Amino acid sequence: MEKILVLGSGMVGRAIVMDMAKDFAVKVIDINKENLLKLKNLKGVKLIKADATDLKTLKGYSKDCDLIISAVPGFLGFKVLKKIIKCKRNVVDISFFDGDAFELNELAKKNKVTAIVDCGIAPGLSNIILGYHNSRMKINSFDCMVGGLPEKREWPYQYKAPFSPIDVIEEYTRPSRIVKNGKIIVKEALSDINILNIDPVGELEAFNTDGLRSLLKTMKIPNMSEKTLRYPGHTELIKVLRESGFFSNKKLNVNGNKISPLEMTTRLLFPIWKLGDEEEEFTILKITISGTEDDKNMCYEYNLYDKFDRKTKVSSMARTTGYTCTAAARLVLEGEFLQNGICPPEFIGVQQENFQSVINNLEKRGIHLTKQVIE
Amino acid sequence: MEKILVLGSGMVGRAIVMDMAKDFAVKVIDINKENLLKLKNLKGVKLIKADATDLKTLKGYSKDCDLIISAVPGFLGFKVLKKIIKCKRNVVDISFFDGDAFELNELAKKNKVTAIVDCGIAPGLSNIILGYHNSRMKINSFDCMVGGLPEKREWPYQYKAPFSPIDVIEEYTRPSRIVKNGKIIVKEALSDINILNIDPVGELEAFNTDGLRSLLKTMKIPNMSEKTLRYPGHTELIKVLRESGFFSNKKLNVNGNKISPLEMTTRLLFPIWKLGDEEEEFTILKITISGTEDDKNMCYEYNLYDKFDRKTKVSSMARTTGYTCTAAARLVLEGEFLQNGICPPEFIGVQQENFQSVINNLEKRGIHLTKQVIE
Repeated sequence: MEKILVLGSGMVGRAIVMDMAKDFAVKVIDINKENLLKLKNLKGVKLIKADATDLKTLKGYSKDCDLIISAVPGFLGFKVLKKIIKCKRNVVDISFFDGDAFELNELAKKNKVTAIVDCGIAPGLSNIILGYHNSRMKINSFDCMVGGLPEKREWPYQYKAPFSPIDVIEEYTRPSRIVKNGKIIVKEALSDINILNIDPVGELEAFNTDGLRSLLKTMKIPNMSEKTLRYPGHTELIKVLRESGFFSNKKLNVNGNKISPLEMTTRLLFPIWKLGDEEEEFTILKITISGTEDDKNMCYEYNLYDKFDRKTKVSSMARTTGYTCTAAARLVLEGEFLQNGICPPEFIGVQQENFQSVINNLEKRGIHLTKQVIE
Repeated sequence: MEKILVLGSGMVGRAIVMDMAKDFAVKVIDINKENLLKLKNLKGVKLIKADATDLKTLKGYSKDCDLIISAVPGFLGFKVLKKIIKCKRNVVDISFFDGDAFELNELAKKNKVTAIVDCGIAPGLSNIILGYHNSRMKINSFDCMVGGLPEKREWPYQYKAPFSPIDVIEEYTRPSRIVKNGKIIVKEALSDINILNIDPVGELEAFNTDGLRSLLKTMKIPNMSEKTLRYPGHTELIKVLRESGFFSNKKLNVNGNKISPLEMTTRLLFPIWKLGDEEEEFTILKITISGTEDDKNMCYEYNLYDKFDRKTKVSSMARTTGYTCTAAARLVLEGEFLQNGICPPEFIGVQQENFQSVINNLEKRGIHLTKQVIE
């Protein structure tokens, strides 16, 4: 039985461990004991309270491992990935760190490491789908919309964060890069709001976020956009907060204390945005790819709608993110995906069998991707 | 020529000084030199940089004065009024302090001082109008709506504060007391929002604020309400901020610094809400009084709409507040209003001549109050 080391046992990390433990021997490292203890009843899983950012620790625990999965918080992601590559272990990373993973490409190649990064739902599954079609047609436009939302719409934000709320605010402030007529254009986050009716939810609003990431480098597609979905009204409130300065991280002197508005804002909003452990939420994804295939105009539309799993209490965000990651991990373990270096998920989609394997793995776990073809 | 001492030379204080200087010898005390210097070209006005909260200072400068007008910031108001009464000077106060002025009633009576308080537009003019009708009819309901708004509606707040922004936030958080069926009912601030079409502005929204003040004690009217007017949409944003905790003054420990969200919020919002010295704004007031008069059902409706004065650069809020105050001051100086003790403006309205004198004084300064009678 192959041995897996999972770094991080947060919401997504735990879903990954539970999934991998069915077929593999799993060790989990987390510095947070509380998170680890949520996995204590899982058979065949070894829980290790340790610091995954420490190279010695990593080397020790990964020595006999066939694959590492990194599900650490975003701000640790790059640093940890570099150390994993130094340990010469194959890795699937879903930490969604801010830096450029390709900076580690040379090192990964030198160390003969397969390092799949950004392997969640979007980025992640969306890239796999694009990678598949990109090797089969000349794509003119790729549009991706994704959102993780609570079932219950509560005034005023109608939102709960299915991952770290600080990463949500980061999404609301970081300029977003889109591609138009072959050129990368920088747009303000929260810009180009449009209202859509998406089954089975109803009206949602979509706005630009900086989610294209690796696709900006790996794809030669003239038009690409990535948008985030929220219930209508949310974006306006966030814009008001942002434009009023509440998300600024510039320290102000308030009564002799140096403090940034963002520090105060996070203190106030995080309890409001905290997704309860058993709070029902869903994930919605809509991808449109159009271009020419065999000299014909073609358009593919993918839709995914997934809900919180009442039986296992696994959130939909953890399911869709974690199971895309474990599907990729299985491809590496089975020797189906062997490419060395930094591999964003669009590389996986190139091989039809691998693309199909990911879709099948999701399907088995109750995550249904529907496909519409418009000729 | 009678001698007047004005305390405070902020926006309203300056309008008062400019108005009184036409007929009287005026001295102005302010601790803020910048404010004082804005009056430096005014003839016959003596500018004094001093601390109006100091009893000795007050005694010295008020010795030969016939009347004091207190236009200090609200948080100093009560303390300063008490000292003025100790100096045995008649006073008109527009500081709108938070405490109960009637606590000083005994002292004022003992010292034979006439102390008119809350003498702005609303509270102020609204009380004078109510006082007038209350002595002539049996009133069943009194409804007052008032707002000071910028001409230019700027996203997102569509608001500039024509007086201290901290007092505006106070208005948005302090529970409001209204009277219903003869009982005082406490309502959350910003509650009972309704949208009205008020000429010549158009749609505005009104919500409960705690503006009845002295009327809760002096009037036996079964139904009374006071509401503040804003452009539609403002109140929702303020509610979001309030309910998210941004107006809380409970100190939080943020990175080892103890700071209240309100302190941070005021730092961010005050620059956005700051009314420019020459920024066009207007004041709107709507009063409805209904009941029975000479055995007939009667309803009186008063409307006031006043704009920034482009010639004198005096804001409408300073005009309507300041000139109601100077009209009352003139009544005291002319010996027309002689009542000792704490006198809220409803006491002035009781005498028809005094009521008419205030209206005439406002009219002369271009502030038109229209009256509709519905039998």
